[in-house]
Amino acid sequence: MSVLRGCTKFTHPGFLSLLSGNSSHGRSCALRYLVSKNDYSTSSKIKVDLDSSNGVAVLQFQSPPVNSLSLDFLTEFAINLEKLELDRSCRGVIITSAQPKVFSAGLDILEMYQKSPEHCAEFWKAVQEAWLKLYGSSKVTIAAINGNSPAGGCLLAMCCDYRIMADNPRYSIGLNETQLGIVAPFWFKDTMLNVVGHRETEKGLQLGLLYNTPNALKIGLVDELVPEDKVLSTAAETMTKWLAIPDHARQISKSMMRKPTVDKLLANREADTTNFVSFITKDSIQKSLGMYMAMLKKKKS
Amino acid sequence: MSVLRGCTKFTHPGFLSLLSGNSSHGRSCALRYLVSKNDYSTSSKIKVDLDSSNGVAVLQFQSPPVNSLSLDFLTEFAINLEKLELDRSCRGVIITSAQPKVFSAGLDILEMYQKSPEHCAEFWKAVQEAWLKLYGSSKVTIAAINGNSPAGGCLLAMCCDYRIMADNPRYSIGLNETQLGIVAPFWFKDTMLNVVGHRETEKGLQLGLLYNTPNALKIGLVDELVPEDKVLSTAAETMTKWLAIPDHARQISKSMMRKPTVDKLLANREADTTNFVSFITKDSIQKSLGMYMAMLKKKKS
Amino acid sequence: MSVLRGCTKFTHPGFLSLLSGNSSHGRSCALRYLVSKNDYSTSSKIKVDLDSSNGVAVLQFQSPPVNSLSLDFLTEFAINLEKLELDRSCRGVIITSAQPKVFSAGLDILEMYQKSPEHCAEFWKAVQEAWLKLYGSSKVTIAAINGNSPAGGCLLAMCCDYRIMADNPRYSIGLNETQLGIVAPFWFKDTMLNVVGHRETEKGLQLGLLYNTPNALKIGLVDELVPEDKVLSTAAETMTKWLAIPDHARQISKSMMRKPTVDKLLANREADTTNFVSFITKDSIQKSLGMYMAMLKKKKS
Repeated sequence: MSVLRGCTKFTHPGFLSLLSGNSSHGRSCALRYLVSKNDYSTSSKIKVDLDSSNGVAVLQFQSPPVNSLSLDFLTEFAINLEKLELDRSCRGVIITSAQPKVFSAGLDILEMYQKSPEHCAEFWKAVQEAWLKLYGSSKVTIAAINGNSPAGGCLLAMCCDYRIMADNPRYSIGLNETQLGIVAPFWFKDTMLNVVGHRETEKGLQLGLLYNTPNALKIGLVDELVPEDKVLSTAAETMTKWLAIPDHARQISKSMMRKPTVDKLLANREADTTNFVSFITKDSIQKSLGMYMAMLKKKKS
Repeated sequence: MSVLRGCTKFTHPGFLSLLSGNSSHGRSCALRYLVSKNDYSTSSKIKVDLDSSNGVAVLQFQSPPVNSLSLDFLTEFAINLEKLELDRSCRGVIITSAQPKVFSAGLDILEMYQKSPEHCAEFWKAVQEAWLKLYGSSKVTIAAINGNSPAGGCLLAMCCDYRIMADNPRYSIGLNETQLGIVAPFWFKDTMLNVVGHRETEKGLQLGLLYNTPNALKIGLVDELVPEDKVLSTAAETMTKWLAIPDHARQISKSMMRKPTVDKLLANREADTTNFVSFITKDSIQKSLGMYMAMLKKKKS
Repeated sequence: MSVLRGCTKFTHPGFLSLLSGNSSHGRSCALRYLVSKNDYSTSSKIKVDLDSSNGVAVLQFQSPPVNSLSLDFLTEFAINLEKLELDRSCRGVIITSAQPKVFSAGLDILEMYQKSPEHCAEFWKAVQEAWLKLYGSSKVTIAAINGNSPAGGCLLAMCCDYRIMADNPRYSIGLNETQLGIVAPFWFKDTMLNVVGHRETEKGLQLGLLYNTPNALKIGLVDELVPEDKVLSTAAETMTKWLAIPDHARQISKSMMRKPTVDKLLANREADTTNFVSFITKDSIQKSLGMYMAMLKKKKS
């Protein structure tokens, strides 16, 4: 994985193949040529099952206890997505959780707490890369949200083409960063804007709102609520409908909607990293993170 | 009509008159000066009735069987709109269908199937021109959607200021291009975006969704559902309300909302045509169109 | 107040403090240094109460009969907002009306009727300034809309972070400028767009719609309807929830959402003023305003 992280730039095959006249965003990472196509199962934090009968890959997050988006998790996630992007036998990707009650708890705070600026920068690039790969994927992407989905967990769900959530009143979803004293970057904001519109994003981001399932459905943050034991099967049925559309036409349409948002991060990627590092390493922010973690520990015990 | 099609550029009187400091987008086509103001009825594919008592023109599509948007239809449509735009006695335009069960079936596939690149380019410019004239019209425009309205039919409806649809469960409306293996261009997308927002457009375009009437109302793709025999009378009543607003103030407001979208096509018109021609003349796309037409024929017999 | 109006440019402390790398938009007005922090009560058209126990300022409009936004009112409003922006003890601002049945009737037509171009320009700059200060405020801003709120009154409400309106069927809210034959400028339009989206803004602006309370809630123009005697107390309770969020994170999030809209006016401020003056001093527009005022007088008697 250090090889992928060592790559300075990645291609974005999804958009490369979609956009006529769009030259490569950078040199391709050599990694993917070194990895056998069928070794998806060697992943430890994410279980990948690609069904060759229909071209649908299921990515199950299996990083106990709460699928925190650590550097290792995000790197593995981006590699898997890149491999699937290049795998012509794959047409759709379902992301879901193998952990009970949680889809993903979001970015791993340990990667940002009392870490060197270099580590923070490396971590942030991995967050960007995971977003670029998922939001820019040419495949049909469906989130089967079978548990809580705050912050970065909500981001991954919002990147998909369709969101199905377990109709469980204890689950919630939203970009709640401000509640922790931190701030969602502009591309988190853009992703939410593209799903629920300006007003709801402005309110949701300022207040760090976690929406319960009926409210998430009402504002359009998720597309559908189903009983908890039907989340994955509904995702599979929905995928079948999406795969009935010719890939090339669907892909160009998807790219047309998402390319400006993707291009915005690509054009500002380094400044965004610098911004993040200078923000997160501030004493006041570190203190907030420390207090938050102490609070979490207290809750557990 | 070949005269109009021979014009390289048209003025956009609606916006010309609205936008201060906005110089002409091109030389005016001489045609309109050669045509008597009252010969609207010479049109064969579109019946035009301009009521001099209230300044409301009704354009009835009468091109059997399904008001396909052929090169001739689109050219006649653009000419009529340009004449009405210049006719100071006209304040509002209602578009509707004289054919049973269909508003318009959308772009005429015969104009794109096994045709020369030159013909495809000419056809596409006519599609652009019709859109520019209707979306950029300074008049009040109302769609009385009395039948099915897929693809290009949906586009024309979305260009209007207000949409009234027959409350008939068998009718549907939407940009379903991907279902045919083709793709709505960026200005179709922009038009839909301005009506139903980003999320619904992204989903609707990718899936090529045709919305039944309750769903079209729910997502805001149409403004009102009325019994089939009330569509035109409701359009006339609605027009009266819109005409109660002083023209100049309403026109500036309309222009303020739509000018950026119009300018985007004007700035990229030739590239858009080139794009379309190179896409539609591909063997794979021609094959898709051929299969689709064979399927339509089979349905009929 | 003439000192403030004499200032050519103002800083925007809200955004200054929020946006890294964003240099001052202009020289600061010296006025604020000359005014004691606690003299808010010297204001005559707006009563300011800053509760030092919680940092919440209530601005009550008390300019009989209908809180028209005159040059004096707007100047006083902008000064108060600027003072509160600089006052670190203040965290939130509630705006409401002390007049019965009206929040604010909007821009004072007397400032635009039979006035010199110079006066019209001065007036317009004050409208811009009030908008910049309120829309760009770093504080939590809540509108307690306890009465009718047309045109400029609606604008002030839309600038806030949250809108609570009295659930009174006789009250309405909206940008109804076109009904008077005048036009909301692009930044009024942008403000509405950010609240209710493109489609509703296009329809509402063209028709000059005044929404009754249920419709205002339905389209999202207000966030909540409460009994008339609960408007202010609900605003206070809502403020408590917003103040539970760490200021710095909320402020950066707010700025991220609003900065592009603020920057657009800042970049086009002089052209916007010129535009307004040339429009409003036209004979035809002056005639419209005269007729409108005659109509209002007739209504009263």
